Amino acid sequence: MDEEVPGSLGTRASFSLRLGQTIFSSASLLFMSLGVQFYGYTAFCYLATVMGLVIPWSFTLALVDGYSILVKCSIRQPGILLVIVAGDWILSILTLAAACSTASVVDLLLHADGPYCSQKLCSRYQISAAMAFLSWFLSLASTLFNLWLLPSL
Amino acid sequence: MDEEVPGSLGTRASFSLRLGQTIFSSASLLFMSLGVQFYGYTAFCYLATVMGLVIPWSFTLALVDGYSILVKCSIRQPGILLVIVAGDWILSILTLAAACSTASVVDLLLHADGPYCSQKLCSRYQISAAMAFLSWFLSLASTLFNLWLLPSL
Repeated sequence: MDEEVPGSLGTRASFSLRLGQTIFSSASLLFMSLGVQFYGYTAFCYLATVMGLVIPWSFTLALVDGYSILVKCSIRQPGILLVIVAGDWILSILTLAAACSTASVVDLLLHADGPYCSQKLCSRYQISAAMAFLSWFLSLASTLFNLWLLPSL
Repeated sequence: MDEEVPGSLGTRASFSLRLGQTIFSSASLLFMSLGVQFYGYTAFCYLATVMGLVIPWSFTLALVDGYSILVKCSIRQPGILLVIVAGDWILSILTLAAACSTASVVDLLLHADGPYCSQKLCSRYQISAAMAFLSWFLSLASTLFNLWLLPSL
């Protein structure tokens, strides 16, 4: 660990980013799935599916980062980092897609002529979409930091 | 132009990518805006706005690429390339968001209980979303090729 890129694999900043991703995506999934009838809309099912992928991924990498900080043992190898960057990239694209879909569907449900969702349900969906956007933002940050580190290995 | 990365700025492949982006985003905008009442839905307005940004950007870069091929004069400088990569990146994120929003809203309009859009209108919206996805894909390809070239300058 000669030259530290803050936020790249195995640093405290990276651990915080991963923890943030796990928390925000779990919150998004909880707000979405504890409200009833989320399976009635394709976009909401898609969000739940994507969050179900993001949570284990971010949690595993948070554990790896935590282990790497505690043991002071760097696990940086070009192959591992490439897999992590590719996985982060794909998951961040999927998260963005899910967040946008959910947000636009909630907007349509709110502003349509008839009362298609109660105020309470709609605000749950909105919070879920907001959490998904935050998770996307942190995921994008992780991708960029690790991508920045990649050519130096 | 010693070492050619296919698809990076100033190559024939890049010119084709830019041309494809311009065509697909124009088609998306036309299918969306020639159908009536697209301004009734936030997601559709957003798609039209983003396409209005993507079309001039891709068209300008197609002209630059075409000029660069014809005159055999490379315009590759780190500063210019950085601006192009950043612009492509932001526009591809915006395009993906617009395409996902449109697709999910169309899906909701199609599968909701009442007849919220006629078959003809809905298929126009679907084609528009598909064109936006294709435009996003080509834009992502351009970003990646130019990003690949960036460290070598």
